[in-house]
Amino acid sequence: LIPAAIESLIVQFARFPGVGRRSAERLAFDLLAAPESRRGELIGALESLGQVGLCPTCGYFTQDGDCTLCCAERDPSVLLVVEKTTDVVAVEKAGAYKGQYHVLGGHLSPLKGITPDRLHIQALLDRASDQCVREVILATSASVEGDATAIYLTGHMRRPGLLISRFGRGMPVGGSLELTDAGTLRLALEGRRGVDL
Amino acid sequence: LIPAAIESLIVQFARFPGVGRRSAERLAFDLLAAPESRRGELIGALESLGQVGLCPTCGYFTQDGDCTLCCAERDPSVLLVVEKTTDVVAVEKAGAYKGQYHVLGGHLSPLKGITPDRLHIQALLDRASDQCVREVILATSASVEGDATAIYLTGHMRRPGLLISRFGRGMPVGGSLELTDAGTLRLALEGRRGVDL
Repeated sequence: LIPAAIESLIVQFARFPGVGRRSAERLAFDLLAAPESRRGELIGALESLGQVGLCPTCGYFTQDGDCTLCCAERDPSVLLVVEKTTDVVAVEKAGAYKGQYHVLGGHLSPLKGITPDRLHIQALLDRASDQCVREVILATSASVEGDATAIYLTGHMRRPGLLISRFGRGMPVGGSLELTDAGTLRLALEGRRGVDL
Repeated sequence: LIPAAIESLIVQFARFPGVGRRSAERLAFDLLAAPESRRGELIGALESLGQVGLCPTCGYFTQDGDCTLCCAERDPSVLLVVEKTTDVVAVEKAGAYKGQYHVLGGHLSPLKGITPDRLHIQALLDRASDQCVREVILATSASVEGDATAIYLTGHMRRPGLLISRFGRGMPVGGSLELTDAGTLRLALEGRRGVDL
Protein backbone atom coordinates (compact mmCIF):
# COMPACT_ATOMS: atom_id res chain seq x y z
CA LEU A 1 0.00 0.00 0.00
CA ILE A 2 2.83 2.41 0.81
CA PRO A 3 4.41 3.56 -2.48
CA ALA A 4 7.87 2.09 -3.17
CA ALA A 5 9.62 5.47 -2.95
CA ILE A 6 8.29 6.08 0.56
CA GLU A 7 8.97 2.49 1.55
CA SER A 8 12.62 2.77 0.54
CA LEU A 9 13.00 5.91 2.66
CA ILE A 10 11.38 4.15 5.63
CA VAL A 11 13.87 1.30 5.23
CA GLN A 12 16.77 3.78 5.23
CA PHE A 13 15.51 5.56 8.34
CA ALA A 14 15.01 2.23 10.11
CA ARG A 15 18.73 1.49 9.73
CA PHE A 16 19.55 4.07 12.40
CA PRO A 17 20.04 2.62 15.88
CA GLY A 18 17.01 3.14 18.09
CA VAL A 19 14.74 3.85 15.12
CA GLY A 20 12.17 1.09 14.69
CA ARG A 21 9.84 0.55 11.76
CA ARG A 22 7.17 2.71 13.33
CA SER A 23 9.46 5.67 14.09
CA ALA A 24 10.92 5.39 10.59
CA GLU A 25 7.40 5.67 9.14
CA ARG A 26 6.76 8.75 11.26
CA LEU A 27 9.97 10.38 10.04
CA ALA A 28 9.20 9.61 6.39
CA PHE A 29 5.60 10.83 6.57
CA ASP A 30 6.65 13.96 8.42
CA LEU A 31 9.08 14.75 5.63
CA LEU A 32 6.36 14.16 3.03
CA ALA A 33 4.04 16.55 4.84
CA ALA A 34 6.73 19.23 5.14
CA PRO A 35 7.47 21.85 2.47
CA GLU A 36 9.60 20.34 -0.29
CA SER A 37 12.45 22.71 0.56
CA ARG A 38 13.10 20.77 3.76
CA ARG A 39 13.85 17.63 1.81
CA GLY A 40 16.39 19.57 -0.27
CA GLU A 41 17.99 20.98 2.86
CA LEU A 42 18.32 17.51 4.35
CA ILE A 43 19.86 16.18 1.13
CA GLY A 44 22.24 19.17 1.09
CA ALA A 45 23.30 18.52 4.68
CA LEU A 46 23.89 14.83 3.92
CA GLU A 47 25.97 15.70 0.88
CA SER A 48 28.04 18.17 2.89
CA LEU A 49 29.20 15.26 5.09
CA GLY A 50 31.62 14.65 2.23
CA GLN A 51 33.63 17.62 3.58
CA VAL A 52 34.14 15.77 6.86
CA GLY A 53 37.28 13.73 7.38
CA LEU A 54 39.43 12.52 10.27
CA CYS A 55 42.48 14.45 11.47
CA PRO A 56 45.70 12.43 10.87
CA THR A 57 47.11 13.85 14.10
CA CYS A 58 44.35 13.61 16.71
CA GLY A 59 41.76 11.44 14.95
CA TYR A 60 38.88 13.87 15.51
CA PHE A 61 36.66 15.18 12.71
CA THR A 62 38.00 17.70 10.24
CA GLN A 63 35.98 19.99 7.99
CA ASP A 64 37.62 20.52 4.60
CA GLY A 65 40.81 19.19 6.19
CA ASP A 66 40.87 21.67 9.09
CA CYS A 67 40.92 20.17 12.57
CA THR A 68 38.99 22.24 15.07
CA LEU A 69 40.88 20.62 17.95
CA CYS A 70 44.51 20.67 16.79
CA CYS A 71 44.17 24.20 15.43
CA ALA A 72 42.52 25.48 18.61
CA GLU A 73 44.43 27.16 21.41
CA ARG A 74 44.40 24.33 23.93
CA ASP A 75 46.91 23.21 26.55
CA PRO A 76 49.45 21.13 24.56
CA SER A 77 50.94 19.51 27.67
CA VAL A 78 47.95 17.22 28.35
CA LEU A 79 46.48 14.56 26.04
CA LEU A 80 43.10 12.98 26.74
CA VAL A 81 42.79 9.65 24.95
CA VAL A 82 39.28 8.47 24.00
CA GLU A 83 37.89 5.69 21.84
CA LYS A 84 35.38 7.56 19.69
CA THR A 85 34.96 10.98 18.12
CA THR A 86 31.65 11.30 19.96
CA ASP A 87 33.51 10.84 23.27
CA VAL A 88 35.26 14.15 22.53
CA VAL A 89 31.87 15.85 22.18
CA ALA A 90 30.75 14.34 25.50
CA VAL A 91 33.87 15.49 27.39
CA GLU A 92 33.68 18.95 25.84
CA LYS A 93 30.08 19.28 27.01
CA ALA A 94 31.24 18.60 30.55
CA GLY A 95 33.44 21.69 30.05
CA ALA A 96 36.09 20.60 32.56
CA TYR A 97 38.96 19.89 30.18
CA LYS A 98 41.15 22.35 28.27
CA GLY A 99 43.95 20.14 26.90
CA GLN A 100 44.35 18.25 23.64
CA TYR A 101 42.50 15.08 22.60
CA HIS A 102 43.44 11.89 20.86
CA VAL A 103 40.80 9.63 19.30
CA LEU A 104 41.79 5.97 18.92
CA GLY A 105 38.90 4.94 16.73
CA GLY A 106 37.93 2.03 18.98
CA HIS A 107 39.51 -0.30 21.51
CA LEU A 108 41.81 -3.28 21.18
CA SER A 109 39.98 -6.56 20.68
CA PRO A 110 42.24 -9.29 19.27
CA LEU A 111 39.31 -11.70 19.02
CA LYS A 112 37.55 -9.32 16.65
CA GLY A 113 40.79 -8.70 14.76
CA ILE A 114 41.25 -5.23 16.19
CA THR A 115 45.00 -5.18 16.74
CA PRO A 116 47.09 -2.05 17.55
CA ASP A 117 47.79 -1.33 13.87
CA ARG A 118 44.01 -1.11 13.19
CA LEU A 119 43.65 1.76 15.64
CA HIS A 120 45.05 5.29 15.60
CA ILE A 121 47.78 4.27 18.06
CA GLN A 122 51.09 5.01 16.31
CA ALA A 123 50.10 8.67 16.02
CA LEU A 124 49.40 8.70 19.77
CA LEU A 125 52.79 7.18 20.62
CA ASP A 126 54.44 9.81 18.42
CA ARG A 127 52.53 12.62 20.14
CA ALA A 128 53.12 11.25 23.64
CA SER A 129 56.89 11.04 23.01
CA ASP A 130 57.01 14.81 22.53
CA GLN A 131 58.78 16.24 25.60
CA CYS A 132 56.27 19.08 25.98
CA VAL A 133 53.56 16.52 26.77
CA ARG A 134 53.52 16.01 30.55
CA GLU A 135 50.34 14.03 31.11
CA VAL A 136 48.31 11.50 29.15
CA ILE A 137 44.84 10.77 30.52
CA LEU A 138 43.44 7.45 29.34
CA ALA A 139 39.68 7.70 29.07
CA THR A 140 39.00 4.47 27.18
CA SER A 141 35.73 2.82 28.10
CA ALA A 142 35.23 1.17 31.49
CA SER A 143 35.13 -2.34 30.00
CA VAL A 144 37.54 -5.26 29.74
CA GLU A 145 38.62 -4.14 26.26
CA GLY A 146 38.91 -0.51 27.36
CA ASP A 147 41.10 -1.54 30.28
CA ALA A 148 43.25 -3.78 28.08
CA THR A 149 43.73 -0.91 25.65
CA ALA A 150 44.77 1.39 28.50
CA ILE A 151 47.29 -1.18 29.76
CA TYR A 152 48.73 -1.65 26.27
CA LEU A 153 49.08 2.10 25.77
CA THR A 154 50.65 2.61 29.20
CA GLY A 155 53.29 0.00 28.42
CA HIS A 156 54.22 1.69 25.17
CA MET A 157 54.11 5.30 26.32
CA ARG A 158 55.91 5.09 29.66
CA ARG A 159 58.88 7.46 29.93
CA PRO A 160 60.38 9.62 32.70
CA GLY A 161 58.54 12.91 33.12
CA LEU A 162 55.25 11.62 31.68
CA LEU A 163 52.33 11.11 34.03
CA ILE A 164 49.87 8.54 32.71
CA SER A 165 46.47 8.60 34.41
CA ARG A 166 43.14 6.89 34.01
CA PHE A 167 39.64 8.34 34.37
CA GLY A 168 38.30 8.06 37.94
CA ARG A 169 35.88 5.22 38.64
CA GLY A 170 33.04 5.10 41.10
CA MET A 171 29.48 6.19 41.67
CA PRO A 172 27.95 8.30 38.91
CA VAL A 173 26.37 11.61 39.88
CA GLY A 174 22.87 10.93 41.15
CA GLY A 175 23.58 7.22 41.51
CA SER A 176 21.96 5.39 44.41
CA LEU A 177 23.95 2.77 46.30
CA GLU A 178 21.09 0.32 46.04
CA LEU A 179 21.00 0.38 42.25
CA THR A 180 24.75 0.41 41.66
CA ASP A 181 26.33 -2.85 40.48
CA ALA A 182 28.89 -4.70 42.58
CA GLY A 183 31.83 -3.90 40.29
CA THR A 184 31.20 -0.19 40.45
CA LEU A 185 30.75 -0.31 44.24
CA ARG A 186 34.09 -2.10 44.59
CA LEU A 187 35.81 0.55 42.45
CA ALA A 188 34.08 3.34 44.37
CA LEU A 189 35.36 1.89 47.64
CA GLU A 190 38.92 1.46 46.31
CA GLY A 191 38.85 4.96 44.86
CA ARG A 192 37.54 6.66 48.03
CA ARG A 193 38.99 10.08 48.80
CA GLY A 194 39.50 12.01 52.05
CA VAL A 195 36.86 14.61 52.77
CA ASP A 196 38.11 18.20 52.85
CA LEU A 197 35.97 20.52 54.91
CA LEU B 1 33.72 21.97 18.19
CA ILE B 2 31.42 19.95 15.92
CA PRO B 3 32.34 20.68 12.29
CA ALA B 4 29.82 22.85 10.44
CA ALA B 5 28.89 20.07 8.00
CA ILE B 6 27.92 17.72 10.84
CA GLU B 7 26.19 20.52 12.72
CA SER B 8 24.00 21.34 9.73
CA LEU B 9 22.94 17.68 9.49
CA ILE B 10 22.15 17.61 13.22
CA VAL B 11 19.97 20.69 12.75
CA GLN B 12 18.11 19.00 9.90
CA PHE B 13 17.53 15.82 11.89
CA ALA B 14 16.32 17.84 14.88
CA ARG B 15 13.51 19.28 12.72
CA PHE B 16 11.69 15.94 12.82
CA PRO B 17 8.99 15.70 15.48
CA GLY B 18 10.13 13.74 18.51
CA VAL B 19 13.80 14.10 17.60
CA GLY B 20 15.62 16.28 20.11
CA ARG B 21 19.10 17.70 19.83
CA ARG B 22 20.61 14.67 21.46
CA SER B 23 18.86 12.11 19.25
CA ALA B 24 19.76 14.18 16.20
CA GLU B 25 23.43 14.02 17.22
CA ARG B 26 23.19 10.27 17.60
CA LEU B 27 21.66 9.91 14.13
CA ALA B 28 24.32 12.12 12.54
CA PHE B 29 27.23 10.39 14.25
CA ASP B 30 25.83 6.98 13.41
CA LEU B 31 25.72 7.95 9.75
CA LEU B 32 29.31 9.23 9.95
CA ALA B 33 30.45 5.92 11.43
CA ALA B 34 28.59 3.87 8.80
CA PRO B 35 30.05 2.94 5.40
CA GLU B 36 29.78 5.86 2.99
CA SER B 37 27.40 3.86 0.78
CA ARG B 38 24.67 4.19 3.39
CA ARG B 39 24.73 7.96 3.06
CA GLY B 40 24.30 7.63 -0.69
CA GLU B 41 21.41 5.23 -0.25
CA LEU B 42 19.70 7.63 2.12
CA ILE B 43 20.18 10.51 -0.31
CA GLY B 44 18.82 8.33 -3.12
CA ALA B 45 15.75 7.42 -1.10
CA LEU B 46 15.14 11.09 -0.27
CA GLU B 47 15.46 12.06 -3.91
CA SER B 48 13.03 9.32 -4.95
CA LEU B 49 10.35 11.05 -2.87
CA GLY B 50 10.07 13.30 -5.92
CA GLN B 51 8.15 10.42 -7.57
CA VAL B 52 5.49 10.63 -4.87
CA GLY B 53 2.40 12.73 -5.47
CA LEU B 54 -1.21 12.86 -4.30
CA CYS B 55 -4.03 11.17 -6.21
CA PRO B 56 -6.49 13.77 -7.59
CA THR B 57 -9.33 11.31 -6.94
CA CYS B 58 -8.77 9.87 -3.46
CA GLY B 59 -6.01 12.12 -2.10
CA TYR B 60 -3.72 9.23 -1.13
CA PHE B 61 -0.10 8.94 -2.26
CA THR B 62 0.73 8.08 -5.83
CA GLN B 63 4.03 6.76 -7.16
CA ASP B 64 4.86 8.11 -10.62
CA GLY B 65 1.20 9.10 -10.88
CA ASP B 66 -0.21 5.63 -10.12
CA CYS B 67 -2.59 5.39 -7.16
CA THR B 68 -2.27 2.11 -5.31
CA LEU B 69 -5.75 2.57 -3.82
CA CYS B 70 -7.88 3.68 -6.75
CA CYS B 71 -6.27 1.14 -9.08
CA ALA B 72 -6.72 -1.70 -6.58
CA GLU B 73 -9.65 -4.09 -6.64
CA ARG B 74 -11.57 -2.75 -3.66
CA ASP B 75 -15.28 -2.49 -2.89
CA PRO B 76 -16.38 0.68 -4.76
CA SER B 77 -19.67 0.97 -2.85
CA VAL B 78 -18.07 2.14 0.42
CA LEU B 79 -15.95 5.24 0.98
CA LEU B 80 -13.94 5.71 4.17
CA VAL B 81 -13.10 9.38 4.71
CA VAL B 82 -9.96 10.21 6.72
CA GLU B 83 -7.99 13.37 7.38
CA LYS B 84 -4.45 12.26 6.61
CA THR B 85 -2.65 9.89 4.25
CA THR B 86 -1.13 8.20 7.29
CA ASP B 87 -4.64 7.45 8.57
CA VAL B 88 -5.07 5.17 5.53
CA VAL B 89 -1.94 3.26 6.53
CA ALA B 90 -3.29 2.89 10.08
CA VAL B 91 -6.69 1.59 8.95
CA GLU B 92 -5.09 -0.79 6.44
CA LYS B 93 -2.91 -2.21 9.22
CA ALA B 94 -6.07 -3.02 11.17
CA GLY B 95 -7.04 -5.10 8.12
CA ALA B 96 -10.78 -4.82 8.69
CA TYR B 97 -11.73 -2.63 5.73
CA LYS B 98 -11.93 -3.53 2.05
CA GLY B 99 -13.63 -0.49 0.49
CA GLN B 100 -12.25 2.70 -1.01
CA TYR B 101 -10.65 5.62 0.84
CA HIS B 102 -10.82 9.36 0.59
CA VAL B 103 -8.16 11.59 2.17
CA LEU B 104 -9.25 15.13 3.00
CA GLY B 105 -5.80 16.50 3.76
CA GLY B 106 -6.85 17.86 7.17
CA HIS B 107 -9.95 19.04 8.96
CA LEU B 108 -11.99 22.22 8.75
CA SER B 109 -10.73 24.98 11.01
CA PRO B 110 -12.07 28.41 9.99
CA LEU B 111 -9.98 30.11 12.67
CA LYS B 112 -6.82 28.76 11.06
CA GLY B 113 -8.11 29.66 7.61
CA ILE B 114 -8.84 26.05 6.68
CA THR B 115 -12.09 26.44 4.78
CA PRO B 116 -13.76 23.71 2.65
CA ASP B 117 -11.99 24.86 -0.52
CA ARG B 118 -8.59 24.29 1.15
CA LEU B 119 -9.35 20.61 1.66
CA HIS B 120 -9.90 17.79 -0.80
CA ILE B 121 -13.67 18.06 -0.31
CA GLN B 122 -15.11 18.80 -3.78
CA ALA B 123 -13.63 15.54 -5.09
CA LEU B 124 -15.31 13.71 -2.20
CA LEU B 125 -18.71 15.27 -2.95
CA ASP B 126 -18.29 14.25 -6.60
CA ARG B 127 -17.40 10.68 -5.61
CA ALA B 128 -20.19 10.40 -3.03
CA SER B 129 -22.79 11.56 -5.56
CA ASP B 130 -22.04 8.48 -7.68
CA GLN B 131 -25.05 6.18 -7.37
CA CYS B 132 -22.91 3.06 -6.94
CA VAL B 133 -21.63 4.47 -3.63
CA ARG B 134 -23.94 3.21 -0.87
CA GLU B 135 -22.07 4.13 2.30
CA VAL B 136 -19.67 6.86 3.36
CA ILE B 137 -17.88 6.26 6.67
CA LEU B 138 -16.59 9.45 8.24
CA ALA B 139 -13.42 8.69 10.19
CA THR B 140 -12.26 12.24 10.81
CA SER B 141 -10.46 12.69 14.13
CA ALA B 142 -12.34 12.53 17.41
CA SER B 143 -11.90 16.25 18.10
CA VAL B 144 -14.08 19.35 17.84
CA GLU B 145 -12.66 20.11 14.37
CA GLY B 146 -13.01 16.50 13.27
CA ASP B 147 -16.66 16.47 14.37
CA ALA B 148 -17.34 19.81 12.68
CA THR B 149 -15.82 18.47 9.47
CA ALA B 150 -18.01 15.36 9.68
CA ILE B 151 -21.13 17.50 10.20
CA TYR B 152 -20.24 19.74 7.25
CA LEU B 153 -19.65 16.74 5.00
CA THR B 154 -22.87 15.04 6.09
CA GLY B 155 -24.86 18.16 5.22
CA HIS B 156 -23.39 18.31 1.73
CA MET B 157 -23.46 14.60 0.91
CA ARG B 158 -26.91 13.59 2.14
CA ARG B 159 -29.05 11.95 -0.55
CA PRO B 160 -31.58 9.09 -0.60
CA GLY B 161 -29.91 5.70 -0.74
CA LEU B 162 -26.64 6.87 0.84
CA LEU B 163 -25.83 5.73 4.37
CA ILE B 164 -23.49 8.13 6.16
CA SER B 165 -21.84 6.70 9.26
CA ARG B 166 -19.24 7.80 11.76
CA PHE B 167 -16.50 5.72 13.40
CA GLY B 168 -17.62 4.16 16.70
CA ARG B 169 -16.56 5.89 19.90
CA GLY B 170 -15.80 4.37 23.24
CA MET B 171 -13.19 2.50 25.21
CA PRO B 172 -10.01 1.63 23.31
CA VAL B 173 -8.88 -2.00 23.38
CA GLY B 174 -6.99 -2.61 26.62
CA GLY B 175 -8.31 0.63 28.11
CA SER B 176 -9.03 0.63 31.85
CA LEU B 177 -12.09 2.45 33.12
CA GLU B 178 -10.03 4.20 35.74
CA LEU B 179 -7.68 5.82 33.25
CA THR B 180 -10.28 6.73 30.62
CA ASP B 181 -11.27 10.38 30.41
CA ALA B 182 -14.82 11.53 31.15
CA GLY B 183 -15.66 12.39 27.53
CA THR B 184 -14.72 8.93 26.31
CA LEU B 185 -16.66 7.28 29.13
CA ARG B 186 -19.75 9.29 28.22
CA LEU B 187 -19.43 8.22 24.56
CA ALA B 188 -18.84 4.61 25.59
CA LEU B 189 -22.02 4.67 27.66
CA GLU B 190 -24.07 6.27 24.87
CA GLY B 191 -22.64 3.82 22.35
CA ARG B 192 -23.29 0.69 24.45
CA ARG B 193 -24.43 -2.39 22.57
CA GLY B 194 -26.48 -5.41 23.52
CA VAL B 195 -24.48 -8.51 24.40
CA ASP B 196 -25.02 -11.47 22.06
CA LEU B 197 -24.28 -14.81 23.67
